[in-house]
Amino acid sequence: MRIAIDAMGGDHAPVETVKGAIEALNEIDATMVLIGNEGAIKDELAKYTYDQSRVEIIATTEVVENEDKPVIAIKRKKDSSMVVGFEKVRTGEIDALISAGNTGALLAGGLLRVGRIKGIDRPALTTVFPTFSGMFVMADVGANAECKARNLLEFGIMGSIYAKDVLGIDNPKVGLINIGSEEGKGTPMINEAYQLLKESSLNFIGNVEARDIPERKADVLVCDGFTGNVVLKLTEGVAKSFMGEIKSIFMSSLLSKLAAVAIKGKLRGLKTKMDYTEFGGAPLLGVKAPIVKAHGSSNSKAFKNAIKYAEKYVSNNIIEKISKEIK
Amino acid sequence: MRIAIDAMGGDHAPVETVKGAIEALNEIDATMVLIGNEGAIKDELAKYTYDQSRVEIIATTEVVENEDKPVIAIKRKKDSSMVVGFEKVRTGEIDALISAGNTGALLAGGLLRVGRIKGIDRPALTTVFPTFSGMFVMADVGANAECKARNLLEFGIMGSIYAKDVLGIDNPKVGLINIGSEEGKGTPMINEAYQLLKESSLNFIGNVEARDIPERKADVLVCDGFTGNVVLKLTEGVAKSFMGEIKSIFMSSLLSKLAAVAIKGKLRGLKTKMDYTEFGGAPLLGVKAPIVKAHGSSNSKAFKNAIKYAEKYVSNNIIEKISKEIK
Repeated sequence: MRIAIDAMGGDHAPVETVKGAIEALNEIDATMVLIGNEGAIKDELAKYTYDQSRVEIIATTEVVENEDKPVIAIKRKKDSSMVVGFEKVRTGEIDALISAGNTGALLAGGLLRVGRIKGIDRPALTTVFPTFSGMFVMADVGANAECKARNLLEFGIMGSIYAKDVLGIDNPKVGLINIGSEEGKGTPMINEAYQLLKESSLNFIGNVEARDIPERKADVLVCDGFTGNVVLKLTEGVAKSFMGEIKSIFMSSLLSKLAAVAIKGKLRGLKTKMDYTEFGGAPLLGVKAPIVKAHGSSNSKAFKNAIKYAEKYVSNNIIEKISKEIK
Repeated sequence: MRIAIDAMGGDHAPVETVKGAIEALNEIDATMVLIGNEGAIKDELAKYTYDQSRVEIIATTEVVENEDKPVIAIKRKKDSSMVVGFEKVRTGEIDALISAGNTGALLAGGLLRVGRIKGIDRPALTTVFPTFSGMFVMADVGANAECKARNLLEFGIMGSIYAKDVLGIDNPKVGLINIGSEEGKGTPMINEAYQLLKESSLNFIGNVEARDIPERKADVLVCDGFTGNVVLKLTEGVAKSFMGEIKSIFMSSLLSKLAAVAIKGKLRGLKTKMDYTEFGGAPLLGVKAPIVKAHGSSNSKAFKNAIKYAEKYVSNNIIEKISKEIK
């Protein structure tokens, strides 16, 4: 298996992208393909000792920047690390592409350069969401700000396959994010989605209110991309503000500093449970090849984990399963 | 001033509704009007010593239940505490109505029995939102699952007046909840709302991403009611799951229990800062009389605080100001 990393994508590229790929070598049996500026990649690689037979470079000369207009960048920057990645994953030269670069460009490229699986109307950015009670899958988290009801059904189908194969959950419970628990709540689109999910063969458990999301009421939560993006980022924001506040409480006096020492390990555990770097990437499910979006601020650990998830994505033939299921 | 409480509304009515009204007597100069089952209210009142000249009862025989269909309940249950409250606040016999009962019925009654301020297309359920950096105002949090762009402009106008008069913030900064910080992000409706807000006389600061909501980037945040409801409830859910996790860390060993003692007061402070009962109620801004929704699970403190906010709502002539500004 050959997993490619857009070495130029993300706030800390190419330092963390290359480091993450090297770290992944020890954990999975795949070749890492680094796409980007050859000199910069080689400079980073020189820092490490690693199995050179499993690392390749595809040299490119351009970079899609965060400020670039997605569709224009995808069309014009033909020798960018991201666009070359799309071509290679489309033709099968590489098995998966991971990028922490411009999200809009990655989504546009997934649609325009790689293409949708037949029968899928809208691919979904799908994430593994951390809670204190374990992980669940959420789709869409930002590929489609506006959705039709059938899109949410597709997200449920794809999310269920992902939850089963990547998280190992049998017959995953699917919930619909809504503003009330009873049937009939929400917008007309949400109501229609409720009916489609109810009539489907999915293990649909009904509406899930936002306050119950951290309690992990379902294995898969579906919503439009606007809502999903808000849920994901708000959870991150509230968690961050809580951790900051707790830290300042512990730093406020000598006694509280001693108290902090007493529970230091456990507080670290708390942080780990909510840490996005543990989950690394969000696959764009519904396109014809594995494309995974990593967080813009990803560190090497996040890249390493994104690579590990991508390996499961490929080895479990998730695209084939989606294709079969959607018929 | 005469502030009415739907004594039968909420999970802990009439115990907490009556108790909250009695507690409010000591803090504001207003008469409390308790609407509901006379016997039940009198039984509760008998528990307290209070200024009897400032407490009145309006006896009613029916109750709008949480399971009732909102519009049907509002039409048929004419002698319910909630519907009688609408009539009294509409005619001006009472100056404000607070209810923790059926949210849909309260919203429907506000529209159908009290009516909109001229020029307002959609009233907004508006809440004071707690963060560790202070409070801000958010609208809509659930009255309108679907919105047009002009509604979000109206929410900004009403929210700004509320922030100024109730929170005491001069020239409040208004932000639009969106899935990116740059102009042009989000749905077509959100983009149109962005333009309307930008061209208005409001102190518009642009988009606010969900991850920045807990950092209190704006004094007023506007969004459709679906998004607002998700933001409000998810924040509550994440905060609750964090507090639960922290509690279990502290209870896990003798040493950690000692650590807990060291920072007990400060942890309590943390909880207080995020405590919805401090803020009590969410006014339905845009209707012709002050109607305030209290959380279904409100305790007496939440009711007392809702009453205090309602007093400010009335004494600052907020409805008159909205009416003037919307022209």
